[in-house]
Amino acid sequence: MRADLLDRLIDLAFDEDLGASGDVTTLAVVPAESRGRAELWAKEPMVLSGLAAFARAFTRLDPAVKISLLRSDGEALGAKTRVARAHGRLRSLLTAERTALNLVQRSCGIATLSREAAEAVRGTSLKVLDTRKTSPGMRTLAKAAVRDGGAENHRFGLFDGVLIKDNHIAAVGSVREAIRRARQGAPRLSKIEVEVGTLQQLAEAIAERPDVVMLDNMTDGQIRDAVRLARGRVKLEVSGRVTLERLPALARLGVDFVSMGALTHSARAMDLSLEILPLARVRPA
Amino acid sequence: MRADLLDRLIDLAFDEDLGASGDVTTLAVVPAESRGRAELWAKEPMVLSGLAAFARAFTRLDPAVKISLLRSDGEALGAKTRVARAHGRLRSLLTAERTALNLVQRSCGIATLSREAAEAVRGTSLKVLDTRKTSPGMRTLAKAAVRDGGAENHRFGLFDGVLIKDNHIAAVGSVREAIRRARQGAPRLSKIEVEVGTLQQLAEAIAERPDVVMLDNMTDGQIRDAVRLARGRVKLEVSGRVTLERLPALARLGVDFVSMGALTHSARAMDLSLEILPLARVRPA
Amino acid sequence: MRADLLDRLIDLAFDEDLGASGDVTTLAVVPAESRGRAELWAKEPMVLSGLAAFARAFTRLDPAVKISLLRSDGEALGAKTRVARAHGRLRSLLTAERTALNLVQRSCGIATLSREAAEAVRGTSLKVLDTRKTSPGMRTLAKAAVRDGGAENHRFGLFDGVLIKDNHIAAVGSVREAIRRARQGAPRLSKIEVEVGTLQQLAEAIAERPDVVMLDNMTDGQIRDAVRLARGRVKLEVSGRVTLERLPALARLGVDFVSMGALTHSARAMDLSLEILPLARVRPA
Amino acid sequence: MRADLLDRLIDLAFDEDLGASGDVTTLAVVPAESRGRAELWAKEPMVLSGLAAFARAFTRLDPAVKISLLRSDGEALGAKTRVARAHGRLRSLLTAERTALNLVQRSCGIATLSREAAEAVRGTSLKVLDTRKTSPGMRTLAKAAVRDGGAENHRFGLFDGVLIKDNHIAAVGSVREAIRRARQGAPRLSKIEVEVGTLQQLAEAIAERPDVVMLDNMTDGQIRDAVRLARGRVKLEVSGRVTLERLPALARLGVDFVSMGALTHSARAMDLSLEILPLARVRPA
Amino acid sequence: MRADLLDRLIDLAFDEDLGASGDVTTLAVVPAESRGRAELWAKEPMVLSGLAAFARAFTRLDPAVKISLLRSDGEALGAKTRVARAHGRLRSLLTAERTALNLVQRSCGIATLSREAAEAVRGTSLKVLDTRKTSPGMRTLAKAAVRDGGAENHRFGLFDGVLIKDNHIAAVGSVREAIRRARQGAPRLSKIEVEVGTLQQLAEAIAERPDVVMLDNMTDGQIRDAVRLARGRVKLEVSGRVTLERLPALARLGVDFVSMGALTHSARAMDLSLEILPLARVRPA
Amino acid sequence: MRADLLDRLIDLAFDEDLGASGDVTTLAVVPAESRGRAELWAKEPMVLSGLAAFARAFTRLDPAVKISLLRSDGEALGAKTRVARAHGRLRSLLTAERTALNLVQRSCGIATLSREAAEAVRGTSLKVLDTRKTSPGMRTLAKAAVRDGGAENHRFGLFDGVLIKDNHIAAVGSVREAIRRARQGAPRLSKIEVEVGTLQQLAEAIAERPDVVMLDNMTDGQIRDAVRLARGRVKLEVSGRVTLERLPALARLGVDFVSMGALTHSARAMDLSLEILPLARVRPA
Repeated sequence: MRADLLDRLIDLAFDEDLGASGDVTTLAVVPAESRGRAELWAKEPMVLSGLAAFARAFTRLDPAVKISLLRSDGEALGAKTRVARAHGRLRSLLTAERTALNLVQRSCGIATLSREAAEAVRGTSLKVLDTRKTSPGMRTLAKAAVRDGGAENHRFGLFDGVLIKDNHIAAVGSVREAIRRARQGAPRLSKIEVEVGTLQQLAEAIAERPDVVMLDNMTDGQIRDAVRLARGRVKLEVSGRVTLERLPALARLGVDFVSMGALTHSARAMDLSLEILPLARVRPA
Repeated sequence: MRADLLDRLIDLAFDEDLGASGDVTTLAVVPAESRGRAELWAKEPMVLSGLAAFARAFTRLDPAVKISLLRSDGEALGAKTRVARAHGRLRSLLTAERTALNLVQRSCGIATLSREAAEAVRGTSLKVLDTRKTSPGMRTLAKAAVRDGGAENHRFGLFDGVLIKDNHIAAVGSVREAIRRARQGAPRLSKIEVEVGTLQQLAEAIAERPDVVMLDNMTDGQIRDAVRLARGRVKLEVSGRVTLERLPALARLGVDFVSMGALTHSARAMDLSLEILPLARVRPA
Repeated sequence: MRADLLDRLIDLAFDEDLGASGDVTTLAVVPAESRGRAELWAKEPMVLSGLAAFARAFTRLDPAVKISLLRSDGEALGAKTRVARAHGRLRSLLTAERTALNLVQRSCGIATLSREAAEAVRGTSLKVLDTRKTSPGMRTLAKAAVRDGGAENHRFGLFDGVLIKDNHIAAVGSVREAIRRARQGAPRLSKIEVEVGTLQQLAEAIAERPDVVMLDNMTDGQIRDAVRLARGRVKLEVSGRVTLERLPALARLGVDFVSMGALTHSARAMDLSLEILPLARVRPA
Repeated sequence: MRADLLDRLIDLAFDEDLGASGDVTTLAVVPAESRGRAELWAKEPMVLSGLAAFARAFTRLDPAVKISLLRSDGEALGAKTRVARAHGRLRSLLTAERTALNLVQRSCGIATLSREAAEAVRGTSLKVLDTRKTSPGMRTLAKAAVRDGGAENHRFGLFDGVLIKDNHIAAVGSVREAIRRARQGAPRLSKIEVEVGTLQQLAEAIAERPDVVMLDNMTDGQIRDAVRLARGRVKLEVSGRVTLERLPALARLGVDFVSMGALTHSARAMDLSLEILPLARVRPA
Repeated sequence: MRADLLDRLIDLAFDEDLGASGDVTTLAVVPAESRGRAELWAKEPMVLSGLAAFARAFTRLDPAVKISLLRSDGEALGAKTRVARAHGRLRSLLTAERTALNLVQRSCGIATLSREAAEAVRGTSLKVLDTRKTSPGMRTLAKAAVRDGGAENHRFGLFDGVLIKDNHIAAVGSVREAIRRARQGAPRLSKIEVEVGTLQQLAEAIAERPDVVMLDNMTDGQIRDAVRLARGRVKLEVSGRVTLERLPALARLGVDFVSMGALTHSARAMDLSLEILPLARVRPA
Repeated sequence: MRADLLDRLIDLAFDEDLGASGDVTTLAVVPAESRGRAELWAKEPMVLSGLAAFARAFTRLDPAVKISLLRSDGEALGAKTRVARAHGRLRSLLTAERTALNLVQRSCGIATLSREAAEAVRGTSLKVLDTRKTSPGMRTLAKAAVRDGGAENHRFGLFDGVLIKDNHIAAVGSVREAIRRARQGAPRLSKIEVEVGTLQQLAEAIAERPDVVMLDNMTDGQIRDAVRLARGRVKLEVSGRVTLERLPALARLGVDFVSMGALTHSARAMDLSLEILPLARVRPA
């Protein structure tokens, strides 16, 4: 994954938070020469993710800030755990605080929810996948958080895998025609996945031997029929309105994958906070 | 608010979704000359927001796409409502779909939650404010969504208002010193707000006559005492662990503002979908 | 493929050709109000490619220039064929001329060479592929030129397909270990190709069932043995020091693909020229 | 010459090779902590050029990679010569390899061809010049490669010298008018060169005393007449369809310069390869 | 204030000074390996400002250049004072010289003029403010120079303070309406200033209790009446055609602020020069 | 001259004036749908320049704003002359006003001062030149303003002409060595100018036949001797502490050029103002 996409996101975040004149409170109140240290604390139980982005926010603003990570992405923490330490110019710590927290709080939210999903299918062969329903600019972080939580990534974007959806099928008239066109025009090393909404479409798809078929918005009964129909000739992925509660039942139905948009589009931000302390009191102005 | 921050976010979102080679499925399956139309549907009740960003995603990718908005930001919709129409190159509609949806779904989530908060204090003088806990890159959209929901914006960023927090106070040793420094160094037309955690700090603050005092993480009892102590000499804002359920009680306590991070950091994405239809079937290749 | 990569290349080309002060000859000699027309001519037989890039160079410099394409990418032309027409501000035509020609001359060179390669295997099942040995910044154009010539594209870049090379194998100790790691960590919809240099490595690879095996720098005899060993269980690609002359023999050996770096790294520029005419003579200054 | 143009080219090359998700093979196969070393080898005789660009590709991707150059730009090498060494993160070496090679292979191709041209006129007063027919984005590298080969640079771009071409003359009606306008409007410290296609135009040009006259597409006989006509009053440059074979004859004709587009537009890539070795085997995953 | 705005200005300055091919004189004359030192001298009495920008110009071009500041922003110097020292690659010193001087000469000009203005009101309660009439791109430097001179800053830009001007009032019909709209729509922590041209408008404004009223282009007599009318209920700022000579009289009139566009729009550049010396003579080529 | 340098300057100016949240006064006071017209007035006598930049500021912010120029660059105006008209969204007119004025006021200042200089030598053969002492980012505009005033441009930047200064001479030990190196390494179509401080250096320079010699900081007597010494073999340029008053005397001394830094580094901003009127009153909110 590429560091420059993260840097562009951080730059954008600073531009919207700092505008043209910067952190006017800190500039007015804190002397330029003050130094400080800070600690990142998890205030509730969570799975960690996004620590590199947290650290990068500080060093992007001020390369002289030093960050020590005390915990690692993927670790499950109890409440009130110290996660990282920072020290450097006090102004830099104060100014980058919110941007750094906004990144890590969201990453941890996704990782924690992904862990719940992964736990719900533990011991089964069902794999939980994410989707492209990520907050704009956060794709790289969100995908990493899903892995940190123990779920798996679907394709990264539109460029690294062929996924034929209902709209593509409608555009060319049939599942069969869509798969044939995809096979002819797809990047040479890409597999082909196709979304179907009915058993009839599934049968039509199987005849063309795609690598994966996505069953869109089907009931458990429909899914059971689909598994029977497929007889292992294609991998099957369930998608649409999947909740944590439904995962064990899906695992029993014998599908290979389930994709959950909620992992990235509706995770809440976890409660982490930064405690900043000046290294020495400044004298009254 | 500035359009170029939104464009930078959209460009970043396309860069992460399209990479260097683009939407390989659509390029392989859909002919370049195919045209289509699309409709945006709200699938559940919600307050609308972010329609301009939704539209901008399409026209940023392809200026020839035409969007008609049938509803407006701030409107409360029932389930299954048509919100907008688009037409243009079918490839463009398919390729921009997810980026456009990611933007509008999150905006509507914030607006819908903000509406709930605004309703909870309707008829009282309490104003519900947002915070800077927005998804990186989404500040402008999140702030607009809060207003569309009927809540109000706190400062946009670190640059447009002095807010002295506990860390600033710790850096200079006292509430009094922090306010004096802020008054001396702040931008000429900025008001001054200061965060306090105890009634003693509140008393110290009031003596310096800031414009607003933020009561951080206080119980209802502490807040009641704070209101008595302030006697209207400063505006009071409550902050920290505020839930929708607690809002009516806060309104009765007589504070002026309450700020809720959850409005922007933990709103879920609303369910909107794009239905795309080719304007004419294409012939088998 | 993405238009913005092309625009960045064109901007870079103009920045290196125009510097800070522009086309000083044209600014000094040609009045700002002069208008002109221009014709693009192929001066030798060639396969066309890159016409959109040729046109884009003009409109990127001056959106008011109008370009009409008289021929299409992929067409084989005889010498002295008119290919396109342009009209607009004479200054714009003169200033963009060289940048536009540099793009189209190289694209046509690649397409013409690719056509020769495609013709050499016509009627056989062997497919000729390109490589990533493209001029920096020209990847998109070069890949399109290969297709215009009738050859096929290997992966676009490092991001859209797993290709395990000798260096990867050396890093982890064995073909088997490399394929297993790739299968576990690769993007979900990516196929897996592995490069081998010996029949022993080929046997080891086949046991792991990758999608394609690349035979690196093998003699015809070694390739014949490899085809026998593989027995159709994996696709085979020949790579390394492949010339046009060798292609028919390779086709007879029964491999599936052959990749040729020369298609993009050593094609010469074709001879196309732009004839520019003022629409009216200007009066002496 | 400016380093930032090179960096923009390298960034563009990485963007097209890495897309949004990077080198997926290396990320899957090679552990993040593996370190390696690499050696750049010239596999055929050549004149070196572009070593700084080769090195820059690695350090642009990963500033921690260390490069030692064992040879210098401008050196003529025999086959199988070691040119440079690199060491650092193995992932970085593998991911930057192709981009670095694409740069240096093309630079060496230009330098090697330029050396042949320079040798062809050695001992004469004829100077071989390049043109602006460089691969877009490679102007700086190509111009340096020409010098490394022993030929000389014509102007860098449209901004650093007045060169009146046939199209300029047609625009204003006469050689005389064009030179007068150029003299009046050109940058104060620029010399003036004018292209002529006939002896009549040459005579007209000489009367205006430009600094250089370019004889476009003339036969040896015409060139001989031109030299007689000029009688040393202007410098003469021959241009158009110049081959290596024709250079000695041109030298005998007594012109001052000859410009050859082929130096940069049709040089082939030289065969250099990077041998990468892990510093220690990694254990099976 | 944000460092990246300064870097963008410096990059723009280098792009216009260096174009695509750089400092051709220095590249031709000075060997790459030559090292040198340089001294910045103030040639006339002045107040210093912009030393960080002066230093940044060198290190932006070449991070290896070392700068030692011998004096500080805000210091008043006599003629012929040494201000800073630099050493590093001689080429870098020569190439960055003019850009660095252009920055510091202008900053010192503003600081020196601001000091004169500040001195003119010393001992009174009148504060001299700047305006937004800064050279495009120089806002951050110009604002700092004003402070270095001892005057004070008005708002930084349009984003950090509400200032209702005649055109706003004309747009909505009355001073009263404009202030009411501003109060409702302004950022929560922004004060409100309104410009008036007559005493009647002043009375109308005072009734709405803005934080500051700007008296635009009033005579001393009108200003005296305005002070009487305001009776301290709003702060008063005088603006329009204010000269250094008029400042003492304005101080006696009892207004709070006076804003002077001339501080930044018409300060002349101060005379500073860079003396560069090679550390060792180079040998003839 | 290149439009994109101007656009980068305007973007930078808007970024520093608008920050992340824009023109908060106009956004709060003026309805989005209000339209207006504006007139640019010259309030004092001046020579016009920079009208295209003035117009570009508006259309860069809002492409729908229409500008009509009533006067042209280079015209000398009396006080109280209407120069241009604009109409469009009232918000756009108000927000771009100051940026547009900052550009045109400075350009007119330079043109007006340049006109004075040109008038001072009218009827003589002496040509007045500018220098590179321009406000960072304003090079293109400043150079055009000098021409609009009737003076002439020296080189645009470091890239388009060789000017050997005292520091270059010191670096290589002698005038002679510096000229020889420059002649060998300079761009092929560049002339060579050399700066000398003494008659001895002048004699040394003349022996090498540069195109121009700059006499740095010489008295009238020294200049007279220099003219005699040169006897027309090189062009002579006077530089250093040149004032308007000294120009006629310099013209009589028979030098060819005089360069004046003050034209661009110390011109004051001219008084132009924008009168904005709403097209219709808006109703109270």
